[in-house]
Amino acid sequence: MKVLRITEPGGPEVLALEERPEPEPGPGEVRVRVRASALNRADLLQIRGFYPAPPDVPPDVPGLEYAGEVVAVGPRTRRLKVGDRVMGLVGGGAWAESLITHEREPLPMPEGLDFADAAALPEAYLTAYDALVLQGDMRPGETVLIHAVASGVGSAAALLCKASGVRVVGTGRNAAKLARASEWGVARTVLCASSPPKFADAVKAETGGRGADLCLDLVGGDYLPETLDAVAPRGRVMLVGLVAGNSTELNLGTVLVKRLRVTGTVLRSRPLEEKIALSQSAERHLLPLFRSGALRPVVDAVVPMAEIRQALERMAKNDSVGKLVVRWE
Amino acid sequence: MKVLRITEPGGPEVLALEERPEPEPGPGEVRVRVRASALNRADLLQIRGFYPAPPDVPPDVPGLEYAGEVVAVGPRTRRLKVGDRVMGLVGGGAWAESLITHEREPLPMPEGLDFADAAALPEAYLTAYDALVLQGDMRPGETVLIHAVASGVGSAAALLCKASGVRVVGTGRNAAKLARASEWGVARTVLCASSPPKFADAVKAETGGRGADLCLDLVGGDYLPETLDAVAPRGRVMLVGLVAGNSTELNLGTVLVKRLRVTGTVLRSRPLEEKIALSQSAERHLLPLFRSGALRPVVDAVVPMAEIRQALERMAKNDSVGKLVVRWE
Repeated sequence: MKVLRITEPGGPEVLALEERPEPEPGPGEVRVRVRASALNRADLLQIRGFYPAPPDVPPDVPGLEYAGEVVAVGPRTRRLKVGDRVMGLVGGGAWAESLITHEREPLPMPEGLDFADAAALPEAYLTAYDALVLQGDMRPGETVLIHAVASGVGSAAALLCKASGVRVVGTGRNAAKLARASEWGVARTVLCASSPPKFADAVKAETGGRGADLCLDLVGGDYLPETLDAVAPRGRVMLVGLVAGNSTELNLGTVLVKRLRVTGTVLRSRPLEEKIALSQSAERHLLPLFRSGALRPVVDAVVPMAEIRQALERMAKNDSVGKLVVRWE
Repeated sequence: MKVLRITEPGGPEVLALEERPEPEPGPGEVRVRVRASALNRADLLQIRGFYPAPPDVPPDVPGLEYAGEVVAVGPRTRRLKVGDRVMGLVGGGAWAESLITHEREPLPMPEGLDFADAAALPEAYLTAYDALVLQGDMRPGETVLIHAVASGVGSAAALLCKASGVRVVGTGRNAAKLARASEWGVARTVLCASSPPKFADAVKAETGGRGADLCLDLVGGDYLPETLDAVAPRGRVMLVGLVAGNSTELNLGTVLVKRLRVTGTVLRSRPLEEKIALSQSAERHLLPLFRSGALRPVVDAVVPMAEIRQALERMAKNDSVGKLVVRWE
């Protein structure tokens, strides 16, 4: 099978196509023929050598999500069979023609989606669902503030909010990308061109002075102090990404007096049982919304695996809206 | 009735005894003859003019907790009757011979405690119970880090941990006060004499390198960065006080990678329904532990109301261990 291997730490140019033996599924595992995968910021970090893969996946092959079909099953595998079309999240190794995963991890591909569409779903929607619903306790009637709303996770989160009776205020640093946000049901966008960003007044204006009930923060850094101002009393902040920076000065008095809850989260390093629990929960709660059409992939572009380096450059430049998908020919 | 009134913003010397008409209980309310109350840091702030009382209590009479007996009931009051011995938490006004409260707010006084003992319980134990159990999801077998473990809330929290099968590592700035901590079942104490404080290594040594599962942080400020280091992956930090400062630089990468949850909380400003829900829950979950003797008041001193100024000075100097109680003669 072909894999995209990190030959040395560096930029996208260090990725090289390489032949490797097909891995064999163990008990309870399946081998998936990967038809398409997608790009994530974590891939860029891993290629640069800053984000090592967890121990249960190939250390030198990036790729956190996939869509494809089951081509082999290991002993004592009951849930999946050869030919099943699946999609899912792995700790790495998805930029390969085959990968091994536990049979309770993949989700069935929603009817009517092709492999490229399906590959755009797992990371964006599982991250958004886990952060907003499972950890963020999102409820209908609330207002959610989403930073970087035009990103893959941001746009998926906005569609999930809309499908859940939740209003969205979204921020971004690029006016052209923000202009797309109404497609995902975003009620109001705030362009954050300067630093530190200013969005609390807009959020308050949009919520009768109350502030957002929940924030999905994909950027961190100097967005966080303003976020504490922009959320309502008892507001929840889910910290999912740190594109804007790793540290910030925080007003603890605001956290205390407003009784705020700030939770950091990451999917990749989670143990198998947590990943399975998440995908089982998503199967019950997200798949019906794909079937009904309320949720859909937000795809920036689909490129062949041979052009992945250019796609990674595009992601690094923040030019993409939604997900960049790569497919094997 | 006599009340202790704040005559102007200032130190404890601005408090003056004053006569005021007895308040009348409305529907569902009771009048409690206050026999004893206790001191809290919030009182010092309120006297200085920095912490205004919520709208439903006298603005100029401090006092957040009480023990006493019901002396009058309003219309449609069913749960309490004249003569009942009760203790509880109010938004203010407890430094008076009488106060009005909703009949679903007070807790019955545990058998065998006198008024002075009972007045030491509500704020310390309800704060600890709410932060550790209701919001902090404390479970048996865990290790909890308690900052300012010799304070009123800290010592109550330590006893609640011990009664719940939870190990405690406690910090403090005063060696003599920390020496008392073994009385409350604290497994290990860490003296934090310097700034920034250092305790993460000790916490890790005490937990096989893992870190504490939960932290009850009564001090904030520059304790928080070290706290993030001292807690385990998925650790929870309950921010309840800010004696060490209002703001700090925070490593968001740690919050994200360790999947931490930082929650600010305060009792005083909560609406009636939340205060009632807390005391009803405490009645079910804390009172049995007072009856069994697992929980008990930690009282530094009991002084007559006429000497409250000196007691406030003592609290301001951080000399007290546990609660300072004031009683009407």
